[in-house]
Amino acid sequence: MLVCICSLLTALALMTATLDSPAFAQDLIVEKKTFELPRYETVAGDTIKNVRIGWEAAGTLNGDKSNAVLITHFFSGTSHAFGKYSASDAGAGYWDGIIGPGKPIDTSKYYVISSDTLVNFNAKAPHVVTTGPATINPDTGKPYGMTFPVVSIKDFVRVQKALIDSLGISRLRVGGASMGGLQAYEWAASYPDIVERIVAAISTPAADLYLIAWLGAWAEPVRLDPKWNGGDYYGRDEPLAGIKTGLKVATLHAFHYEWADKAFHGGPAAEGKDPKTALANKFKVETELDDFIAQRAAVVDANQFLYLVKANQLASADISRIKAPVLAIATPTDALFPPARVAQAVEKIAANGIAVETAQVTGPNGHWNGVLAIAQASEKIRAFLERK
Amino acid sequence: MLVCICSLLTALALMTATLDSPAFAQDLIVEKKTFELPRYETVAGDTIKNVRIGWEAAGTLNGDKSNAVLITHFFSGTSHAFGKYSASDAGAGYWDGIIGPGKPIDTSKYYVISSDTLVNFNAKAPHVVTTGPATINPDTGKPYGMTFPVVSIKDFVRVQKALIDSLGISRLRVGGASMGGLQAYEWAASYPDIVERIVAAISTPAADLYLIAWLGAWAEPVRLDPKWNGGDYYGRDEPLAGIKTGLKVATLHAFHYEWADKAFHGGPAAEGKDPKTALANKFKVETELDDFIAQRAAVVDANQFLYLVKANQLASADISRIKAPVLAIATPTDALFPPARVAQAVEKIAANGIAVETAQVTGPNGHWNGVLAIAQASEKIRAFLERK
Repeated sequence: MLVCICSLLTALALMTATLDSPAFAQDLIVEKKTFELPRYETVAGDTIKNVRIGWEAAGTLNGDKSNAVLITHFFSGTSHAFGKYSASDAGAGYWDGIIGPGKPIDTSKYYVISSDTLVNFNAKAPHVVTTGPATINPDTGKPYGMTFPVVSIKDFVRVQKALIDSLGISRLRVGGASMGGLQAYEWAASYPDIVERIVAAISTPAADLYLIAWLGAWAEPVRLDPKWNGGDYYGRDEPLAGIKTGLKVATLHAFHYEWADKAFHGGPAAEGKDPKTALANKFKVETELDDFIAQRAAVVDANQFLYLVKANQLASADISRIKAPVLAIATPTDALFPPARVAQAVEKIAANGIAVETAQVTGPNGHWNGVLAIAQASEKIRAFLERK
Repeated sequence: MLVCICSLLTALALMTATLDSPAFAQDLIVEKKTFELPRYETVAGDTIKNVRIGWEAAGTLNGDKSNAVLITHFFSGTSHAFGKYSASDAGAGYWDGIIGPGKPIDTSKYYVISSDTLVNFNAKAPHVVTTGPATINPDTGKPYGMTFPVVSIKDFVRVQKALIDSLGISRLRVGGASMGGLQAYEWAASYPDIVERIVAAISTPAADLYLIAWLGAWAEPVRLDPKWNGGDYYGRDEPLAGIKTGLKVATLHAFHYEWADKAFHGGPAAEGKDPKTALANKFKVETELDDFIAQRAAVVDANQFLYLVKANQLASADISRIKAPVLAIATPTDALFPPARVAQAVEKIAANGIAVETAQVTGPNGHWNGVLAIAQASEKIRAFLERK
């Protein structure tokens, strides 16, 4: 995640600086902690031993433990939603623009927690703690690989619930972007008596048919790479080329042409190697994108990518169970969770008598506006969370 | 193309029937002809011997040869734009709703021609005649493979120009959708004194950075498939899996979630094989999409796919040379040539004093609305072509 978001921010520096970083005087410093569960039974009935997920927190839990906010991360994200690990970090967590002392999700009021999910695909990133196919199976001493059970967004939420229980928290606000929104909706549906409010950015309660198909297409290049070898590659050459192509499709899908116009350059990749003279000669935009993807791919485990895709395809929160008021934030150029789909979802929720509010953020980054331009919704988020 | 459009029409039968098929009493019957050029020198300076492309025509060329209309096809298309090869054909050409006797592109007034492009990727389709890496190199008696020179949209147009010249035509209207629009713009830029009017549906004059990157991502799965073997697979197992993944990405990119909602079904692909119980268990939408893609992939040559991608990446009509009035047709849910991009392009053309008209078509099919719902623009097209 660090790698991925840092490279992203490098590429997008100009935009993001103006879009979502009101200056705050003091850095929030966070620490990665690990939550462990000796056994976890999945929604589908499988048992995973020694489940470990990373988490970070800021603020102070109040006396009656009623001020907790859980931040759930997006597909390529991690629990590093706010703050820095050290003051010298180049960048802060992905929603740092709205989380911290005095910010809309105010760590001087709220105890704000963020956790890594199961099967987080950034399995090799230094600050990520997750459990998935790349994890050593305690029964065999080898990575689970394809023997790891399928998990879903609902499993992510159940493991987070165990973390929340371990802290004695029984009232919770939940917020997240994209896959983080899928988790927020699932939290509200699974634990309607615990969840008080949810903020779901660039998300809906479930994956629709088109998204299920798209997610499958993101995953296919991994399987095409012969180094994937049916998921059995640990200790050998990993299917990096397949990961890169899958990530490239996902990345293009989640951005927008205005992003490409700003982040990349026209013309041939190399002087004297015009793309019109040889099939192998690339355009500059292609090699620049390759470099961007290579940075992200370096920390990705291929099998966890496939499992994460499946978890998202399985997203299907039962909205009839939701009691918590919803703040749904959409962005006009979102190809994954288009605003019209978000509107359809919240209309259904509102039809059940649930209070629904909406907000919009904009920018050149397509779906990613919900991460990079979230500060545009600052006052809506602040007011929504404080509402009684 | 037959395969591809027929399967498409099957999947989309309900929609297309209502959207673009006013009933006409009589079938137009067309015949595939072949145009041959002993030598063709590409834009990049390479020579290709024995260039052959297929073409079809309807109507009658008038005495002063001033009534010709050239239809240029889209990425996955062929010259079969109108009519049927025989009255018993299940479907007609892709723009049959607007081309034929009495239709907006009226074959009782115009001599309407449509040609296959170079490197058409449907190299194995029964009615496609094209020249590309799958063609036998007359100097070696073996397929060109990767020795085939890179060609561009401009090369497609130059070969079409030779066809037009062979018919003695020196005044021309040109129309096409998507890659067909890229060709129409290139025609107007390359031959401003010949081209009288162009209709460019769901297209712009050039590929932008985002589209160049996307096209590269469509192609990458082919290269990942070990059966591609650096392009050397003729006479052996072909990289069908890579073609299918590439086509799947392209297909999802060119449609829309409303299409998926109508064309596919929810739930598991197979009873007793719930996707939540095993990674290999698929959703019904995934296997239905697989079947749809398999039909299209069956006639595709992998290398021609790569060359066609490159030709589109190279699309770059010099709009400062365009003299012909333009009718630009866009569709709101187009992810390849979004309406805002189309608008930017035509504004630039209009700024040069060129007459520009616009139209919009809508439907559930994203970019494909420009093919499947083109009849919505019937009267605009008719009036535009007739304008003096």
